[in-house]
Amino acid sequence: MAEENVIYVGNKPIMNYVLAAVTQFNNGASEVVIKARGRAISRAVDTAEVVRKKFLTDVEVKDIKIDTEEISGERGDVINVSSIEIYLAK
Amino acid sequence: MAEENVIYVGNKPIMNYVLAAVTQFNNGASEVVIKARGRAISRAVDTAEVVRKKFLTDVEVKDIKIDTEEISGERGDVINVSSIEIYLAK
Repeated sequence: MAEENVIYVGNKPIMNYVLAAVTQFNNGASEVVIKARGRAISRAVDTAEVVRKKFLTDVEVKDIKIDTEEISGERGDVINVSSIEIYLAK
Repeated sequence: MAEENVIYVGNKPIMNYVLAAVTQFNNGASEVVIKARGRAISRAVDTAEVVRKKFLTDVEVKDIKIDTEEISGERGDVINVSSIEIYLAK
């Protein structure tokens, strides 16, 4: 899958990510992956739900994966952070 | 599935939910469902990840479902809240 079909959810308003996903589908993408880490995970779920329930009702959740990523902390320590990947497809 | 195999993740320390899930598996459960709504969703993912990576490495994520629930607000209005269900199984 092309890298432009991945949306990284952070701290911006959810509608930013929703519109990014809707735009990708409208530009011909058949699959869009919504990714997030840590506290942004709930916002990734919000994004997926708004896309498929309010905007593109033919889009389905094809798969959801969760994992743990190791991130380097400020002092050189390693922090474990949960991550999510939500695969939306037409 | 018996209702006692469901763990609702809220605002307590994550280890409370982790230990509840581990206890259910150790008591013979073959499947445990971790549920959460709204901002607790990221904590539900943390819970599932800690259970299967730190405590019970034979436990796998069998399925993950996301949905939108309608909740009655304080003024009789209806609020949409995202929810997650993480199915862990041995």
